[in-house]
Amino acid sequence: MNSLIEQLKTIAGAPNVLVDGDLTAYEQDWRKRSRGKALAVVRPASTTEVAAIVKACAAAGASIVPQGGNTGLVVGSTPDESGSQVVLSLQRTNAVRSIDAHNLTMTLEAGCILQAAQEAAEREGLLFPLSLAAEGSCTIGGNLSTNAGGTQVVRYGNARELCLGVEVVTAQGEIWNGLSGLRKDNTGYDLRDLFIGSEGTLGVITAATMKLYPLPVASLTAWAAVPTMQDAVELLALAHRHLGAGLTGFEVMGQFPLQLVARHFPQQRVPLYEQSPYCVLLENSDSESEDHARAQFERLLELAMDKGLVSDAVVAENIAQARQLWHIRESIPMAQVEEGLNIKHDISVPVSAIPKFCEVTDALLAREIPNVRLVNFGHLGDGNLHYNVQAPPGVDPAAFLREYEHRVTTLVYDSVRNFGGSISAEHGVGSLKLDKLEDHKSPVALGMMRAIKRALDPQNLMNPGRVLNP
Amino acid sequence: MNSLIEQLKTIAGAPNVLVDGDLTAYEQDWRKRSRGKALAVVRPASTTEVAAIVKACAAAGASIVPQGGNTGLVVGSTPDESGSQVVLSLQRTNAVRSIDAHNLTMTLEAGCILQAAQEAAEREGLLFPLSLAAEGSCTIGGNLSTNAGGTQVVRYGNARELCLGVEVVTAQGEIWNGLSGLRKDNTGYDLRDLFIGSEGTLGVITAATMKLYPLPVASLTAWAAVPTMQDAVELLALAHRHLGAGLTGFEVMGQFPLQLVARHFPQQRVPLYEQSPYCVLLENSDSESEDHARAQFERLLELAMDKGLVSDAVVAENIAQARQLWHIRESIPMAQVEEGLNIKHDISVPVSAIPKFCEVTDALLAREIPNVRLVNFGHLGDGNLHYNVQAPPGVDPAAFLREYEHRVTTLVYDSVRNFGGSISAEHGVGSLKLDKLEDHKSPVALGMMRAIKRALDPQNLMNPGRVLNP
Repeated sequence: MNSLIEQLKTIAGAPNVLVDGDLTAYEQDWRKRSRGKALAVVRPASTTEVAAIVKACAAAGASIVPQGGNTGLVVGSTPDESGSQVVLSLQRTNAVRSIDAHNLTMTLEAGCILQAAQEAAEREGLLFPLSLAAEGSCTIGGNLSTNAGGTQVVRYGNARELCLGVEVVTAQGEIWNGLSGLRKDNTGYDLRDLFIGSEGTLGVITAATMKLYPLPVASLTAWAAVPTMQDAVELLALAHRHLGAGLTGFEVMGQFPLQLVARHFPQQRVPLYEQSPYCVLLENSDSESEDHARAQFERLLELAMDKGLVSDAVVAENIAQARQLWHIRESIPMAQVEEGLNIKHDISVPVSAIPKFCEVTDALLAREIPNVRLVNFGHLGDGNLHYNVQAPPGVDPAAFLREYEHRVTTLVYDSVRNFGGSISAEHGVGSLKLDKLEDHKSPVALGMMRAIKRALDPQNLMNPGRVLNP
Repeated sequence: MNSLIEQLKTIAGAPNVLVDGDLTAYEQDWRKRSRGKALAVVRPASTTEVAAIVKACAAAGASIVPQGGNTGLVVGSTPDESGSQVVLSLQRTNAVRSIDAHNLTMTLEAGCILQAAQEAAEREGLLFPLSLAAEGSCTIGGNLSTNAGGTQVVRYGNARELCLGVEVVTAQGEIWNGLSGLRKDNTGYDLRDLFIGSEGTLGVITAATMKLYPLPVASLTAWAAVPTMQDAVELLALAHRHLGAGLTGFEVMGQFPLQLVARHFPQQRVPLYEQSPYCVLLENSDSESEDHARAQFERLLELAMDKGLVSDAVVAENIAQARQLWHIRESIPMAQVEEGLNIKHDISVPVSAIPKFCEVTDALLAREIPNVRLVNFGHLGDGNLHYNVQAPPGVDPAAFLREYEHRVTTLVYDSVRNFGGSISAEHGVGSLKLDKLEDHKSPVALGMMRAIKRALDPQNLMNPGRVLNP
């Protein structure tokens, strides 16, 4: 393996092959669920270097763990404990290669930070709508490998829907230039979407051409108290109908997660939650004017109040207020941390099934764990809930996790299955959900996935042990 | 093979296994480019029957040609001349299985006619936006197998973007229930999008869950004369900016194709074309009101006229006028038929490259063929042109085709390559473009496609000889 390290140094330059010192940032996942040991961390500067590295690793039989910002939530981008895997960090390949305003596209290298991509688009008066909590440190390559979701999916779709073409280094170290600014191209199998969401197990995405949109002229945020989850779903339907594609965000938050924010971040003023089981955050983006957006929003909320779907609501008066409202939503995960360890789920069911799913699963959990506290919030517009479970008051969180994590997760996932849902809506599989996937995915689908993995990566060198067992 | 036919009769019922009589409708493609001979045409009524048929064919080593409405343009759904292939017609599996209004989804069987799907959605006050010329006879299964495009792609994407999940019978005759009303599901490889656009070469799509949208409150159509293709592209950018997602259609038509419509269908009144090299058809769909849509449209057209992008324009006053304008656009292919045989291309390049592509390719063609006549029209919003070539005046069309088809197509496709485009934007590959694909697709991509084909259909039984050679 020393010979491989020497080859990697020749390819990427010695300073870009890390073997000593503190490699925690590369070897440990963001949530600190797992710590591995890499043979080396290599940081190439170009696609050609990536290809040469993959070829060298393949020849040496060393497996490769591609890594972007290492902000994933399912332990998918850190090495195992063998000390034999090469971490391939794409952080140095981070250029915005081009922006084509008339084609509404942008070509980015894999290591480009999401926020840098957003800002590059904005400088051209354009919108790159992918937006999620880790945007300050996650990368486009990671976003695509995990088909990232976030808060704008209700209008713009996941990372997959925003991508027109990819450049990939295959498991054999060949470069496929599938970069394309084409919105229509029916010349064979959809390799692009196969690599997107494959979590680095089929090859390495080194660049991508992404869709852009005109910047909205105005973007308004509203906060509404809704009596029930069913009311929230009906409010969503009403918003789709009245705002059309102007509806760019629709988040739901239960009363308890909002209590947690109010308790742990008292400087934040959380509106309307004390009298309401749920609150909803809506965003309306408009290509016309702020006045128009506001009039539309107010009409929608009045209608919703007439129908009894909304008990009270506020529309942010300015951008600062809008940011405060979004900040409350984004503070829920940190408020959970302050409250103590909890059991996390990232699930989806059809939007129409959300109220019944919550009713049934809430009841099952309450029966299983007296005084259980549900941190239920998420992207209702996409049917995606972060349906998390916090220990009852006064119970030690670590002990709670030890005793209940497996039982609770099994209960929640079984309920998800009963409602035709997914046990990983936007976070992916990684190694954390590998075993669960075997239980929850159709054997026919798993069989096809394995056949594809063997076909494209017969040596099983690309991020082995992620997504599926061989 | 008699034993196979008997098995098929047992599975689907004798009346649904056609071996005698006039099978032209199943054995000949829509454009009459090719006529084959089937061992049998089998018309199953359910997914279970499809699975049993595929298993029986696989056991007998008989290859299968899946077929929907048989309206494809690249000879992808008819049997070869061997008399040994089984045509699997999905026309009888045509139910709308369910519509979920709150989830904005609809689950359809493969044989459901596109127009029937549109109408089923509309009855629930919802929009199924896939729309194309053959919608009265093409099927959802065919639309997905070929990733159909059409006139609403600028807003809603191709068939792929409209699909959330598929049910598939694999090449081994197993049923994969990948139907899903989920907008987020990151549990493994994207098998859905692999089957979509694979033209029946990997398995048979038997049902799909498709996205729906609220019906727009108003939909207005405008017709604008634009001096140059560059102006048309700039008008598109302006329309994106001012109409946002309201822009649901943007078609460009050259002066000559409009002349053909005016000449062969004199009852149609073609506006504004006599003074203008190009005309553009725009559609603005609004979730608010017709007045609002009209005001927005007029503001856009005034702005465009101020900038000199548009020399004159009309907005349809009512639905009848709007239909007349769309009817002109849709009559171009028939007007071409009336004028005589021609050489057809379905190409795409980045929208920003369209003007230069046309300038360069027009000039190359004019040099190659004195007095050549270009029938240039298409979905400019998607960078997709039907860049067709008609014989010079007075030249016999059949003789022209014989002499020029290969040269002209080579010239056009080489130009498409130079501009980073695709030689099949929305029609697919079938057998018609099989050889061209070998020349124009990256060998790395072709290698991965072949590996996937071998992995999922190792016997090469599914629509062999389409999309790619083994």
